[in-house]
Amino acid sequence: MLPPAILAEFAALLGTERARTDADTLALYAQDETPGRCTPEAVLFPSSHEQVAGCVRLALKHKLPITPRGAGSGNVGGAQPTPGSVVLSFECMNRIVEFDPANRLIVVEPGVVTQDIDRLARTAGLMYAPDPGSGAYSRIGGNLAMNAAGPRAVKYGVTRDHVLGLRAVAGDGRELRTGGRTSKYATGYDLTRLLIGSEGTLALITEATLKLMPAPERTVSLRVCYASDTAACAAVQRIMQQPVVPSALEFMDRRSIEAITEYGVSVEANVMRSGRSQFGAAEGLAPGTEAVLMVEADGPAEDIPRQIAALENALRGDGLLELQTGFTPAEIQNLWTARKSLSHAVKKIAPLKINEDVVVPVSRLAELVAAIDAMGTLHRLPIVSFGHAGNGNLHVNLMVHPDDEDEMARAETCLRELVETVLRLGGTLSGEHGIGTKKRQFLPLEIEPDTLTLMRELRRVFDPQGILNPGKKLPD
Amino acid sequence: MLPPAILAEFAALLGTERARTDADTLALYAQDETPGRCTPEAVLFPSSHEQVAGCVRLALKHKLPITPRGAGSGNVGGAQPTPGSVVLSFECMNRIVEFDPANRLIVVEPGVVTQDIDRLARTAGLMYAPDPGSGAYSRIGGNLAMNAAGPRAVKYGVTRDHVLGLRAVAGDGRELRTGGRTSKYATGYDLTRLLIGSEGTLALITEATLKLMPAPERTVSLRVCYASDTAACAAVQRIMQQPVVPSALEFMDRRSIEAITEYGVSVEANVMRSGRSQFGAAEGLAPGTEAVLMVEADGPAEDIPRQIAALENALRGDGLLELQTGFTPAEIQNLWTARKSLSHAVKKIAPLKINEDVVVPVSRLAELVAAIDAMGTLHRLPIVSFGHAGNGNLHVNLMVHPDDEDEMARAETCLRELVETVLRLGGTLSGEHGIGTKKRQFLPLEIEPDTLTLMRELRRVFDPQGILNPGKKLPD
Repeated sequence: MLPPAILAEFAALLGTERARTDADTLALYAQDETPGRCTPEAVLFPSSHEQVAGCVRLALKHKLPITPRGAGSGNVGGAQPTPGSVVLSFECMNRIVEFDPANRLIVVEPGVVTQDIDRLARTAGLMYAPDPGSGAYSRIGGNLAMNAAGPRAVKYGVTRDHVLGLRAVAGDGRELRTGGRTSKYATGYDLTRLLIGSEGTLALITEATLKLMPAPERTVSLRVCYASDTAACAAVQRIMQQPVVPSALEFMDRRSIEAITEYGVSVEANVMRSGRSQFGAAEGLAPGTEAVLMVEADGPAEDIPRQIAALENALRGDGLLELQTGFTPAEIQNLWTARKSLSHAVKKIAPLKINEDVVVPVSRLAELVAAIDAMGTLHRLPIVSFGHAGNGNLHVNLMVHPDDEDEMARAETCLRELVETVLRLGGTLSGEHGIGTKKRQFLPLEIEPDTLTLMRELRRVFDPQGILNPGKKLPD
Repeated sequence: MLPPAILAEFAALLGTERARTDADTLALYAQDETPGRCTPEAVLFPSSHEQVAGCVRLALKHKLPITPRGAGSGNVGGAQPTPGSVVLSFECMNRIVEFDPANRLIVVEPGVVTQDIDRLARTAGLMYAPDPGSGAYSRIGGNLAMNAAGPRAVKYGVTRDHVLGLRAVAGDGRELRTGGRTSKYATGYDLTRLLIGSEGTLALITEATLKLMPAPERTVSLRVCYASDTAACAAVQRIMQQPVVPSALEFMDRRSIEAITEYGVSVEANVMRSGRSQFGAAEGLAPGTEAVLMVEADGPAEDIPRQIAALENALRGDGLLELQTGFTPAEIQNLWTARKSLSHAVKKIAPLKINEDVVVPVSRLAELVAAIDAMGTLHRLPIVSFGHAGNGNLHVNLMVHPDDEDEMARAETCLRELVETVLRLGGTLSGEHGIGTKKRQFLPLEIEPDTLTLMRELRRVFDPQGILNPGKKLPD
């Protein structure tokens, strides 16, 4: 716990209520969605750019590491406190600074909930395209820190592609403005994208100017059942080789379907209470279904039939069991609620989820899925795989019992094999979750030594004392 | 000229024919498209990544600045030799390393001509979206260095948005690999985009993995005449406030039209020789035309009528004189040849073109155009403005006689007023040409001192001796 004299300095800056060391607050902020806890020395709730800058200066003065935090919904330990650190939560910086539909942009503070940005944009016929699974509660600051994405990324790109400029405080206390307000910018170095995905290790983002785009008039969903993973992956490849780019192309393996089916009960219960459709996401699947694709098309209403025809054509092939469309809006919402609940639902399989977020080129997805299947059998581990197949981005979940030493050792071996397989297939460690504490040991397998050293040197330019989120992103 | 002993070292690395100091070669590489010349000490033509790395090491050993060069088609002096420097031309690194349509990517060396990438992509139903006006001769390495764009950027984004990964040699000789081959990447810091637009001041790009996308089935062009700049700018704003995003939205003021009309003669002569349509780009304009918009829509053939209807609806308004469509492919090619020739054609107005590349939010475009008009009158200068109106990106050309001291002084004053106006309107100095030698004096007006200092520090991480393209991008 922070010595009272230092706490008093933070309290003088932020107000007593916004510089907390009470046991309840410390306990609440001791973890994010990642397994593992570490009690911070204090939790700070700045409410402005200037207060963030002040916090960084005080932290420098007292050599206190800062763990930045949005909603704490990350699952690589990005917001997990480092020993001896103070958590700096952006929850109180949740203002929409400016909404400018005429220029298709919005200026937000980092504590704004991601989905609220999209909701506001829709009131002017626009949308904020990135839609992480956690969008209903994650904060935009965390999305920027991790370069979050989601199902729509296959058509619209990731967080990085939707940012015009940033305001930030570097780890040495310098206040920065990057980029601008225009849709083209070739002026300074691209610090905007250097900060996006840097996981709070370079600077704390205090304001973001985001790009908005016209919202599609209509969205249609397909649910497609296949007799095998191979058949589903072949369909994914066919989809990504014809010109109609779907607005979502999600893959779920058999274990995902089972997890959804369990979870589906509670979804359905909710639905029944609200008097809406009883259609559950994994209900009524064709017998023999081993893999499901959820596919979406969006665009002008007149153009949807053409898109659906092209997508259906590509989805048809060996192993197709059933192709369903014509869902009601309530049914579609159920499908997505269930899909987005998967990240939590799988935890019913075993108490600990070792969650990977690997990406391979789309043409190698079938190989990856087959390799994962073989690894699960070899190492006797239940592995649940689902994710954004159109980007080749798979969430691979090794379900384990942390008290079972033998199982944990097998998981460790399996994890390393998975990483090596992904890299052999031309892929990358993370598509949207980032590296945090959980994957940084593997970074040297992907990034060449000189490039990695240069990244460390860049970090020192922003944060020479290493006070911003130490122990994250880069290996020591 | 390089001392013979040092030249011999470069010749040993590259071959005698690829390390040149003959007068003809030095003269050829003494300038790019920007006014001004400086004879380099030598011109090097490496043919591989390894040879580039070798050149950088030799340059470090002999403390020789390197001026990297693609086609030399830039117009901010980016490839203009610094005194005492050797030019490193990427012309001989022009191989397509890999074309992988199944994963919608292509791996190229920096000397490949931009348009050739798109042409190859089209053979598989794909396209490389960025289309700079210089695309028929510019090299992709230069496009990456400057973050080039073009008319299609309004719908598809700029070079930065179409790159998956890079291979490069830093200014300290370290060999780097950034990004990857997948459409999502949240692993290391985003060095890819830090290098894009860094104008060869951080590292020399030796290979790029570019993103391809489905080529639109059909493209349709509109030519729209307005009675005033204000009327045309209002139409631009209406277009960018309805959901159909055009694939091009180009503005030309009266002086641009005049320049095209002159140039149009030679285009037409060519066309007549080839027996094709005689339709010139600025011919047959409605009487009283003071501004022209060229608008394109692309997409599936079935969807084009809907798009055109929406665009036409937005284009209609006060001051509309004529809206033409239904052009033949040959006519469309003429329109674009003429539009893309503008950059050269304006030189007929006066011998020297001071070429700005400013951007403002679309809602402020009319104000900018009006301000430029007033500045031209006040400072008695012909100013030609045209550009990518959908992005708020205007090429503002001050046409001057370099021997007329008074005129040059007025141009200087006018330029500074232009920059101040752009920044006051929330804009930026450069949308796609970059900064080079020509605009770096204005950088401190846009970028805050701490942010600019940090950019200089980043440069030192990559290039501690400052041998890569010194005197470009950042002010001293």
